[in-house]
Amino acid sequence: MTDLLIKNVRILDDDPADILIQAGTISKIAAQLDAPGVPVEDGTGLIALPGLVDAHTHLDKSLLGWPWYKNDVGGANLMAMIENEREMKRRLGLDPHVQSMRHALKTVAYGATLIRSHVDIDTQGGLRALEGVMQTAEALADVVEIETVAFPQSGLTIREGTAELMDQALAMGADLVGGLDPCGVDRDPKGHLDIIFGLAEKHGKGIDIHLHEFGELGLFSMDMILERAQALDMKGMLTISHAFCLGMPDFPRVEAMLERLASLDVSIMTTAPASAPAPMVKRLDAHGIRIGAGNDGIQDTWGPYGNGDMLERAKFVGLRNNLRMDTEVKRALDICAGGGAEAMGKQRRELATGAPGDLVLVEGEAVVQAVVTHAPRKLVVKGGRVTARDGQTVVQAP
Amino acid sequence: MTDLLIKNVRILDDDPADILIQAGTISKIAAQLDAPGVPVEDGTGLIALPGLVDAHTHLDKSLLGWPWYKNDVGGANLMAMIENEREMKRRLGLDPHVQSMRHALKTVAYGATLIRSHVDIDTQGGLRALEGVMQTAEALADVVEIETVAFPQSGLTIREGTAELMDQALAMGADLVGGLDPCGVDRDPKGHLDIIFGLAEKHGKGIDIHLHEFGELGLFSMDMILERAQALDMKGMLTISHAFCLGMPDFPRVEAMLERLASLDVSIMTTAPASAPAPMVKRLDAHGIRIGAGNDGIQDTWGPYGNGDMLERAKFVGLRNNLRMDTEVKRALDICAGGGAEAMGKQRRELATGAPGDLVLVEGEAVVQAVVTHAPRKLVVKGGRVTARDGQTVVQAP
Ligand SMILES: [Zn+2]
Ligand SMILES: [Zn+2]
Repeated sequence: MTDLLIKNVRILDDDPADILIQAGTISKIAAQLDAPGVPVEDGTGLIALPGLVDAHTHLDKSLLGWPWYKNDVGGANLMAMIENEREMKRRLGLDPHVQSMRHALKTVAYGATLIRSHVDIDTQGGLRALEGVMQTAEALADVVEIETVAFPQSGLTIREGTAELMDQALAMGADLVGGLDPCGVDRDPKGHLDIIFGLAEKHGKGIDIHLHEFGELGLFSMDMILERAQALDMKGMLTISHAFCLGMPDFPRVEAMLERLASLDVSIMTTAPASAPAPMVKRLDAHGIRIGAGNDGIQDTWGPYGNGDMLERAKFVGLRNNLRMDTEVKRALDICAGGGAEAMGKQRRELATGAPGDLVLVEGEAVVQAVVTHAPRKLVVKGGRVTARDGQTVVQAP
Repeated sequence: MTDLLIKNVRILDDDPADILIQAGTISKIAAQLDAPGVPVEDGTGLIALPGLVDAHTHLDKSLLGWPWYKNDVGGANLMAMIENEREMKRRLGLDPHVQSMRHALKTVAYGATLIRSHVDIDTQGGLRALEGVMQTAEALADVVEIETVAFPQSGLTIREGTAELMDQALAMGADLVGGLDPCGVDRDPKGHLDIIFGLAEKHGKGIDIHLHEFGELGLFSMDMILERAQALDMKGMLTISHAFCLGMPDFPRVEAMLERLASLDVSIMTTAPASAPAPMVKRLDAHGIRIGAGNDGIQDTWGPYGNGDMLERAKFVGLRNNLRMDTEVKRALDICAGGGAEAMGKQRRELATGAPGDLVLVEGEAVVQAVVTHAPRKLVVKGGRVTARDGQTVVQAP
């Protein structure tokens, strides 16, 4: 059942219309459609948005469903946070499949139809996290599309055996090669980057690298990253997540870097962080750089924040970028929906014929109001299938 | 009726206890209290927080209750935003009393018991906004304490007659003298500051000045402000709102300014903005500087954001300051509650005997969880009176 007729919805503030989804794809949008034999949902005049896209999260990390985790580690020491997480995972005996089901379905309840998840690969947990998340991806194949990134959270060159595990992870089916602060964590940018680009080349897969390094250090690492992407002709296959250094206040040098990013068609993923420098939407847009957004980890050992809601994330994108006009806030929403899918190299999610039959119905008077109030989600549809209703997913979380 | 016994609540993650409020003040906290003749609320094991405090907002500006306002002015030009607001107020014929009732009661529904509101004073609206907000303060005297600041939003020296209106506003009962970017708006820092400090001296009232000016310019204005506060011996009577310049990256000069602020016991009010430099909580705390937080304007011509929820604001304070540990997030909450009251020069809101009988009961497992999820407010009490239940105020908004 991947046909669905949704009657009487307002598409992005337009006049009421009906949306026909056939074989999982939007086939027709018009007033008063009829489609004999096709199941019907009454949109009751709600606002229709494209399916939301969480382009950067960690489905294997959340503590959802566990007693509240009291955080006494803080944010000052990255390595201490990494060690603490591995230790807590071991102590609690977290099941990555169960945790990723809970996290993914919470995100679906808020309207997501597509998720890119980094998944920890390390010598303690081995490939268990990836197995668990891939099991979730399979179980939820009709509910939400989940892409995985093999992510060396605990370091690559500093923990012997991690590169081999990364290699196995990619052979097992991880969709992308991950990486992390080549200077800050491994303290060996050449070693780190040679390994991950080597893996990308070997497996013919793209890269999505976490780059939190600030200012000059981040620009240095980014330069080394782009050098390799260019040498391997990886145009359009590289994502840089966070990219805080693009928020540094050196206008001409950032400008030159943006030009290089654009020429290699690199995507940037952001959480629109309030406490760090960040790539600015309008500035990247001026260079035509693809931008996605993500909630990153939610309610995990790293911090208590986050809930899986990409409409709230759109609000954060708006707040972080000082977007006030309706047209601007709509761009923030696009980054958390169709634009995010494009940043992942996927087909754009949009309410147009030929696009995937993914959409969310929300209450509210206007799209911008729905974004800033993160209005209740009444219905979530993926490929013509209803996946959530009134904030409850059709599939139950364990 | 200002006596109330609240049974079975968890005070800031402590074991369940009962709270007795007598004559509007918390008189006893203990397990299994009895108080014959006193009305009882069953707290059903909910978390009790102190009454929330919005220490910086604009009750006269919100468009709540109106059709969704489409913003096409944006945030690039401050003077254009100011002009646009006056024009929209005129065109819509906004009633400041009605709008401030809606805004204040929305804030109360989210748990506020104390609000400081700046109120526009200008030659177009005259004293109408202040009259409307003061009418609201009187109507809601038992529901929420509202303090007013006479605020020259459209400039002071650039609009003849504004100083006289400010003088009348203070005579009428505005609690504090407001001010605004002495360089940026009036383009006459000496003229602007001489007027507002003159008014403060004449009326024996404190000052709360908006200072958005960044970096060097902000430090310059702040220096001129403190010079006058010192000359007039206004220790403890001065508030600087926003104070973006304290977020500038010149460590020693900001440090010197923080020492001066501390020596004059100046309060800082912040929204914890994501898109601007901002005073950092831990840094101000190290100097013992009082900090309050506010939602600033909500859903007005300036932008679509904001909802009156000071628990969500505590989350923003946490996110902006990268606060991850439970103890840190609790400090963020304190800034939006007891600490905010202290920053206003009011008695601290806290759940302790002798404190005002103001509290909020929220769902949730732990205080930090309640903050980061801005958990549903089940009951709001001010001075022993129930003011809201299940997110609905007892007094209806017009
Ligand atoms: Zn991440
Ligand atoms: Zn303000």
